[in-house]
Amino acid sequence: MKEFELIKRYFTGAGVSRKDVALGVGDDAAIINVPPNSQLIVTTDTLVQGVHFFADMEPRALGHKAVAVNLSDIAAMGGEPAWISIAVTLPEVDEQWVEAFTAGINEICEYYNVQVIGGDTTQGPLAVTISAKGLVPKDKAIVRSGAKPGDWIFVTGTLGDAGVAIDAIKHNKTLPLKHQAFLKNRFEYPTPRVAIAQGLREIASSAIDISDGLLSEIGHILAASNVGAVINIDQLPLSDALLGSVEDESQYYEFALAAGDDYELLFTVPEDKRGALDVTLAHYGVKLTCIGQILGQAGNVELRKDNQPFTFEGKGFQHFSQES
Amino acid sequence: MKEFELIKRYFTGAGVSRKDVALGVGDDAAIINVPPNSQLIVTTDTLVQGVHFFADMEPRALGHKAVAVNLSDIAAMGGEPAWISIAVTLPEVDEQWVEAFTAGINEICEYYNVQVIGGDTTQGPLAVTISAKGLVPKDKAIVRSGAKPGDWIFVTGTLGDAGVAIDAIKHNKTLPLKHQAFLKNRFEYPTPRVAIAQGLREIASSAIDISDGLLSEIGHILAASNVGAVINIDQLPLSDALLGSVEDESQYYEFALAAGDDYELLFTVPEDKRGALDVTLAHYGVKLTCIGQILGQAGNVELRKDNQPFTFEGKGFQHFSQES
Repeated sequence: MKEFELIKRYFTGAGVSRKDVALGVGDDAAIINVPPNSQLIVTTDTLVQGVHFFADMEPRALGHKAVAVNLSDIAAMGGEPAWISIAVTLPEVDEQWVEAFTAGINEICEYYNVQVIGGDTTQGPLAVTISAKGLVPKDKAIVRSGAKPGDWIFVTGTLGDAGVAIDAIKHNKTLPLKHQAFLKNRFEYPTPRVAIAQGLREIASSAIDISDGLLSEIGHILAASNVGAVINIDQLPLSDALLGSVEDESQYYEFALAAGDDYELLFTVPEDKRGALDVTLAHYGVKLTCIGQILGQAGNVELRKDNQPFTFEGKGFQHFSQES
Repeated sequence: MKEFELIKRYFTGAGVSRKDVALGVGDDAAIINVPPNSQLIVTTDTLVQGVHFFADMEPRALGHKAVAVNLSDIAAMGGEPAWISIAVTLPEVDEQWVEAFTAGINEICEYYNVQVIGGDTTQGPLAVTISAKGLVPKDKAIVRSGAKPGDWIFVTGTLGDAGVAIDAIKHNKTLPLKHQAFLKNRFEYPTPRVAIAQGLREIASSAIDISDGLLSEIGHILAASNVGAVINIDQLPLSDALLGSVEDESQYYEFALAAGDDYELLFTVPEDKRGALDVTLAHYGVKLTCIGQILGQAGNVELRKDNQPFTFEGKGFQHFSQES
């Protein structure tokens, strides 16, 4: 058996075992039963060493993150993740590395009830491509194009944390001891907002996940929906860790607006659904913050601070991820 | 817009436009309607420069081949390919390259009625990962594990052609002028056996595609089905181009048995289905050759030539592809 075939075996039986998988890893392809009245959701994302992650990233974290960024895309559609295929390219066979990488994949797949149904292992520069598949009830997916003037703009969690971690690693800055683990985890072990996204199906008019930074992502919603937005930057949700790690106040906004890799959800809610949002989503335990409203000229984002126009220089903050 | 975002646009609308795609490229994920009474087939394959293809391979051929190897896996299950997601990693943006690459993808996708539903473009060493999805009527997929003692072993097309081309490129050999184009095409523009595979659903007891060489692939069927095989090497289908390009007769068998990259189908047929095979498959216009029978000790392959045992040295012929 070839060395890389051996590694493929690590993927066999990875994640949970789902009843809707008729045939998993090991044949030419997997066979899946898609339930009636559901639509299939499909997404693919690649992480390349040096572009999307640092060379010394722990393989367990890489396994987690490669899955998480894909599940985040499924979540942004209001979908329920179900199956993933993993294509990993490795410079050489290192069983310890593969074991830790697979452990990271297993942990997140078990948590979200996802089965690994395919694995391709090839030799070459380190990169991971995952194709994730999920389900959504027919016609209930949340797309980017549904935002309407007057809708409120929300985000989950806090923004900019991963950006602070990336910035510290890149520029060899020391973060306050009590915040280090939190910020590093936000970058390496992002939480896809899977559960709450399913609760948003009947509530949100549009949604996207924040991989590239808030301003970039809101731009995608505005373009797809042909609307504009007002964002109140003093309402952006910032973690204590970010506030305790960044000295210059103007940098708060830079991290929150332009850094990516937080994988929080950005979504819009019509006025008449705000009550439903409060009631239905109370039990998810995820912080939700209203940061603005769909308003104004199509494609335009107006930033406000204390109700005054605010100019964001956006001086090309280089976040890690290059792609949405 | 980032350069790599620009490239992603090439994938938007690539391939055909299928009615069962509710949402294609451009949102967080694609949305697909899977028809009732069908099962979903999923496969993923990566091609890495220097491992699976030469650095100077034409981008149009690379686009074709990256799709073809995935459709070949769908075919090997008796499935009908329908949708693909493309993740391409490029060292730098070269629009001419991307245009040719996309042209190669479009040509094969149009031929097989496949829609491109997702594209991720990242910066890094050249590699292409495609995840292909297809459909098969419920419980009609052809798996590797169904071969039974007495079943006949068949292959489509001819074997070893791609191996001859790879060998010539690697060792800087000049192939006879009249065979050059045929052999190079067999390596660069393989034909996935999509149509005939669907005709095999009710006939074949097992199937696999030959990406890694006949002996390796028959081994997968024998392991999954817990059976043995006799292969008559004098019955292996060899092209005029191979016969006219390889001087040493013993090399014929080496290419046909151990070289891969032909993407022909290897399948088994019960005795009582041979009539159906002849009748049903006559109109596909694909050459079918019976090369042996499922017989003997589980896991064992016995080679025969002119009804005498034949020992194949298998001196580690290095075909290009490292993975099945």
